[in-house]
Amino acid sequence: MASLQSVIQGIYTELLSRLGSGKVADYIPELAKVNPRRFGIAVATVDGDVHAVGDAEESFSIQSISKVFALTLALGTHGDALWKRVGREPSGSAFNSIVQLEHESGIPRNPFINAGAIVVCDAILARHRPKEAIGEILRFVRALADDETVAIDPAVARSEQKTGFRNLALASYMRSFGNLHHPPELTLGVYFHQCAIAMSCRQLARAGLFLANGGCVPSTGFTVVSRERARRICALMLTCGHYDGSGDFAFRVGLPGKSGVGGGILAVAPNRASIAVWSPGLDKHGNSELGTLALQMLAERMGWSIFG
Amino acid sequence: MASLQSVIQGIYTELLSRLGSGKVADYIPELAKVNPRRFGIAVATVDGDVHAVGDAEESFSIQSISKVFALTLALGTHGDALWKRVGREPSGSAFNSIVQLEHESGIPRNPFINAGAIVVCDAILARHRPKEAIGEILRFVRALADDETVAIDPAVARSEQKTGFRNLALASYMRSFGNLHHPPELTLGVYFHQCAIAMSCRQLARAGLFLANGGCVPSTGFTVVSRERARRICALMLTCGHYDGSGDFAFRVGLPGKSGVGGGILAVAPNRASIAVWSPGLDKHGNSELGTLALQMLAERMGWSIFG
Amino acid sequence: MASLQSVIQGIYTELLSRLGSGKVADYIPELAKVNPRRFGIAVATVDGDVHAVGDAEESFSIQSISKVFALTLALGTHGDALWKRVGREPSGSAFNSIVQLEHESGIPRNPFINAGAIVVCDAILARHRPKEAIGEILRFVRALADDETVAIDPAVARSEQKTGFRNLALASYMRSFGNLHHPPELTLGVYFHQCAIAMSCRQLARAGLFLANGGCVPSTGFTVVSRERARRICALMLTCGHYDGSGDFAFRVGLPGKSGVGGGILAVAPNRASIAVWSPGLDKHGNSELGTLALQMLAERMGWSIFG
Amino acid sequence: MASLQSVIQGIYTELLSRLGSGKVADYIPELAKVNPRRFGIAVATVDGDVHAVGDAEESFSIQSISKVFALTLALGTHGDALWKRVGREPSGSAFNSIVQLEHESGIPRNPFINAGAIVVCDAILARHRPKEAIGEILRFVRALADDETVAIDPAVARSEQKTGFRNLALASYMRSFGNLHHPPELTLGVYFHQCAIAMSCRQLARAGLFLANGGCVPSTGFTVVSRERARRICALMLTCGHYDGSGDFAFRVGLPGKSGVGGGILAVAPNRASIAVWSPGLDKHGNSELGTLALQMLAERMGWSIFG
Repeated sequence: MASLQSVIQGIYTELLSRLGSGKVADYIPELAKVNPRRFGIAVATVDGDVHAVGDAEESFSIQSISKVFALTLALGTHGDALWKRVGREPSGSAFNSIVQLEHESGIPRNPFINAGAIVVCDAILARHRPKEAIGEILRFVRALADDETVAIDPAVARSEQKTGFRNLALASYMRSFGNLHHPPELTLGVYFHQCAIAMSCRQLARAGLFLANGGCVPSTGFTVVSRERARRICALMLTCGHYDGSGDFAFRVGLPGKSGVGGGILAVAPNRASIAVWSPGLDKHGNSELGTLALQMLAERMGWSIFG
Repeated sequence: MASLQSVIQGIYTELLSRLGSGKVADYIPELAKVNPRRFGIAVATVDGDVHAVGDAEESFSIQSISKVFALTLALGTHGDALWKRVGREPSGSAFNSIVQLEHESGIPRNPFINAGAIVVCDAILARHRPKEAIGEILRFVRALADDETVAIDPAVARSEQKTGFRNLALASYMRSFGNLHHPPELTLGVYFHQCAIAMSCRQLARAGLFLANGGCVPSTGFTVVSRERARRICALMLTCGHYDGSGDFAFRVGLPGKSGVGGGILAVAPNRASIAVWSPGLDKHGNSELGTLALQMLAERMGWSIFG
Repeated sequence: MASLQSVIQGIYTELLSRLGSGKVADYIPELAKVNPRRFGIAVATVDGDVHAVGDAEESFSIQSISKVFALTLALGTHGDALWKRVGREPSGSAFNSIVQLEHESGIPRNPFINAGAIVVCDAILARHRPKEAIGEILRFVRALADDETVAIDPAVARSEQKTGFRNLALASYMRSFGNLHHPPELTLGVYFHQCAIAMSCRQLARAGLFLANGGCVPSTGFTVVSRERARRICALMLTCGHYDGSGDFAFRVGLPGKSGVGGGILAVAPNRASIAVWSPGLDKHGNSELGTLALQMLAERMGWSIFG
Repeated sequence: MASLQSVIQGIYTELLSRLGSGKVADYIPELAKVNPRRFGIAVATVDGDVHAVGDAEESFSIQSISKVFALTLALGTHGDALWKRVGREPSGSAFNSIVQLEHESGIPRNPFINAGAIVVCDAILARHRPKEAIGEILRFVRALADDETVAIDPAVARSEQKTGFRNLALASYMRSFGNLHHPPELTLGVYFHQCAIAMSCRQLARAGLFLANGGCVPSTGFTVVSRERARRICALMLTCGHYDGSGDFAFRVGLPGKSGVGGGILAVAPNRASIAVWSPGLDKHGNSELGTLALQMLAERMGWSIFG
C-alpha cells in the first residue's frame, strides 16, 4: 500500500482542477468572505504522526464541527442524563428545521443539528456563567489539539449573532417547552462563540484523535472519555453528522464524520487516524463538496471503511 | 477473551429471565400467533464456524430482513441506476410513513422502509414475471444460506396480503408519481411473499455472511457483490436498518443491522461474523427488544463495534 | 339595480377577452380533451327563473361538485353519525393530500377533499350494492335538477379509474385505519362514477337551488333537507369548498361554493339564487380561474355577499 | 319572534347550570386567575340598541379578538399590499404552530393566527414608534367602542412578555425569512400590549358594530372601512377566526366570529348586530365553550345565520 503521505498528496493533486466547486455559505456574512479555492487535508494517526497537504495550516471557522467537542464536554459533566433533553436519531430534515421540534415537544432529534447543539450549550451553562462556559469549551478544544493558539474569531461570532434569527427561533421554541434552562440569548451567546472557533486542519485532526484512539489522546496518554463513549460519539457522527446528507456520507465514505458550513469535515478512522479536510464550497445539504470527495478517495485508497 | 460459544451462552442465560418482554407484532394476524418466549442466537464466523444457542434452529418469519437480500439482488441487475428511484438517507419517520413520499415526489428515503422495499421489488419485477420474481428471490436466499430448505410461509404471505392496506396505499401513491412501473397488486405480491420467507437463526446468519466477508461467501468462495458494494449495503443497514430506531441501534450496538417485525435481527461484524438473533417481543419502533439487547452485549463482550 | 340577465350578460362580455386563461386539468386524460374556451353561466333564482349565458346548456364533468350532492344524500341516511368518520374543518392542504390522514388516524378533515368524499361514498355503500349506490346518487341529482337527462360520462369514469392511483392510495390508507368499510376498489368505483356525472350550468344551478331555499326545491315544494342542514352544508362549502383556496374564495366572492377540476363551480346566494359557472382553465389550487372571477363580479354587482 | 332581550336572557338562564365548563387558559399566568364562572352577553344592533345580560359590564382580556381591530387598522394604512406578507387561508393547524411557516417561507397563513397577527403588528410599526403604535391601536379601539375607558391591562402584558417564548420563536423565525421588518422584541412589545386590551362585552359589541353595518359606525356615521373591506374582514373571521376550530364554528353558529383565549368571542350578524360573549372556560381548540354554545343558540333563535 502506498504511504499515507503520498496518498493524500495524490488526492490533493487530482482534485486541484475542481477547486471552487460547490457554493460557499453566505447566510453568515463573515463566512461568505472566504476564498472558495482554499483546500487542505491533515491526517493525524494514532501512532503520533501528522500528514498534511495544501492549506492545512490555515485557520478556518469550524462551525458545526465544534458540536462534537461540546457534546463530549457536556457528556463529561451530565452523563447519560443529557439524553433526556436531546435524542440520538437522524432527523431526516435540514440542519435548521423547526418542524420536528413542534411534533416532538421541543426535544431535538440529535446533538448535531442546530437545535440539539443549542441544548448541549444550555447544559454546559448549568455549571458555568456564560463567559466561563465559552472559555471552558475553548480550553477543552485547545487541550485536545494540544495547541494554545486555537482561538475564537470574534467577527464571525458577531456576524452569527446579528443574523441568527432562525437559531433564536429554535432556542425560544425549546424554551417554551421548558427544554432550555437559560434565557435564549445567553445560551445562544455560548453557541455562537463555539461555532466561531477557528482551527487549521492540522489542529482539528489532532483534536479529534481521541475518538480514533478509544477515548484517549495518544501523545499525552490523557483519557478524555471511556472507549465506550468514544464509540458512541462516533456512532452519532455516522448517523447524524452530515444533517440530511448523513446517509449519503456513510454510503460513500464509510467513516464517522462531522461537517461544518465553514467547509471543514472531521472524520474518524477507528484505531487508525483522525482526518480533517477543508474546502469552503458546499453541496445542497451544507456539507463540503470537495471535502467529502477527498474523504471518499482517502477511505477507499487506505481501506479505512468501518464497514469492512 | 472468552470463547464465542461461551459468550453467547452467557448472554442467553442472563436474558432468560426477561423472555417475553416487548410486544409481539399483531397487525399481521399470522405473526401474532408466535410464542413470545422464543429466543435464539446464531453467529456465523468468516472462518466457517457457526455458534448457536436457544431456538436457533427454529424457523421464523424474517419479514423486513428480507429487504437486505432483495436490495442486493436488485443492485446486481440494476446497479446504481436503482438510486434514482430510492434514496439512501434515514427517514426520521416510522417504517410505514407516507408523509415523506408526499413531500418528496414519491421517492422513498431508503430501501429499508416499506415504500423503498416496494420499489426494490418493482425493480426486480422488471426482469421477471411475478411468480418468477418471487422464485428468484427465494433461490438467491437459499444460495446465500447454502440451504435448499428455506421456504416461504404461505399463511403469512396470505395474511399480509389480506391486511396490507397501508402497503397498498404506499404502492398506489408511488404509482401515482410514476415511481412504480407495475400495477400495485403485482409488486405487492412479490413484496408480501418476500417478507414471508421463513428462516432459522442459523440459516439467516449464514445467509448474511457475505456482508461480513467483503462480498464473498467464505464456504464456497462465491462472490455475491464487490467489497465496495458489501460495505455500502452495511452502511445503509447502519443508518437505516432499524427505522426511526436506527440511531439508537448504532449508538448502543455499534454494528450494521436489519430488523424485522417477526422479531429477528441480522447484524454484521465486518471481517468477523454475521449474527442472527430472534425474540418476537418488539420495542416501540418495531425492533426486537431482547434481540437488540443481546446484540449490544455480544458486541461489547467481543469488542466488535465498528467504531473502535 | 340592473336586471340579473343584463348583469350576467355584462360579465360574460367583459370576460370574453380572457377566455382560455388558466390551465385545463390534465391528470385525467379524458378531461384534458375539453375545449379551454368554453364558458357558461346560469343563475336559478328562488322565484323559479333561470338566467343563462354562453355555453350554459352544454354538459361538462362536474367532478368534485358532486361531493355536495353525495354529502346531502349520506347525511339523509346516516345523520350526524357521519361526522364521526369525517371532520368539518378546512384542511389547509391540497385536495389530494395524504399527510393529514397519517397525523389524524385516517379521519379526513372534511367531506369536500378527496379523502373525505371517498368516506362519504363508503357511507352510501352501507345501504346499497355498488351499482345501486351509483344509481341512487344519479337518481338524486336528476331529481334535484328535475331533469332525467343528467347522466354519467362512462369515458371519464373509466379514465379516472385507470389513473386514480392517488385516490387508491387515500382509500387504502383509510381502510388500514378502519375508516373505510368496503374494499377500496368498490368504494372508488362509486366515487369515480359520481365524479363523472355530466351536467350543464343550467342543470347544475337548478340542482343546487334547494341550498339557497332553506333546503326545499322551490318548483316542487319538495323538502330535501331541513333549513338547519341546508345552512350547515353551505357553511362547509364556504370553509372547505375550494380546497386550499377556500379562504381566498370566501374573501373575494363571499358566497358558499364548491368547485370541480372540470372547471365548474356551484355557488349559493342564500334566499336568492343558485349559480353555476363553467370555464375549464384552473388556477394553481385547481379552481376555475374565470369562473371565480365571474362569481366575484356577480356577487359584487348584485350585492349578494353573505357578509353584508 | 321573541324580543332580542328576552332571547339572550333565556339563553343566559339556560346556560347558568353549565357555568365553569371548559378549561381556563393557564399558559399566561395572569389569565389563569380569572373566575371561570363569569358569563356575559352583549348585543349591539345596527339600530343603536345594546342588549346585555350577566357579566356584560365587566372587563376581560380580549386577547386575539384584538387581531380584528389591528388588521382593520393595518389595512387602512397598507391596503392590499399587506396580503403579500400574510395569507388569507385557514391554516388547518393550532394557533401557535410554526410548522406551516417553515414550509411556506415565513408567510403566515392568515392574520388571525399568532404568526399572522405579529406580522400585522410589524406593519403597524412601519408608521409609528413602538409606544406610539400601541397608543394608536388603543385609540382606534376606543374610538370604535366610543368609550375612552378601554385600557390595556399592564399585568397581562407583562405576563405575556415573560412567558411568550413561543411567540418569540414565531417572530424570530419570520424575521429570518425577512418577513418581519423590526427586531422581534419590538414587534412583540406591540403584539403583547394589543392582546392585553381589556374590554367589557358591551364595549366589545359596540366596537365590532362597524363590521355589521357596511364598515360604518351607526351612532356617529363614521366610515371605518368600505363596505367591501368590511365584508372581507368578516370572510376572514368566518374561515380563520377560531383557529383549527373555525370550520366547526361556521358549521354550528353560522356567523363570522373571532375568539380570544380570555374566553371572549366577537361575532357579526351582517346588517343586524354585533355580538360579544364572554365565558373563560375553553374547548380543546382554545375557543370559549359556553360562548360558542350561546352564539349557536342566539343565531338559531334569531334566524341570524348568514347561510340562509
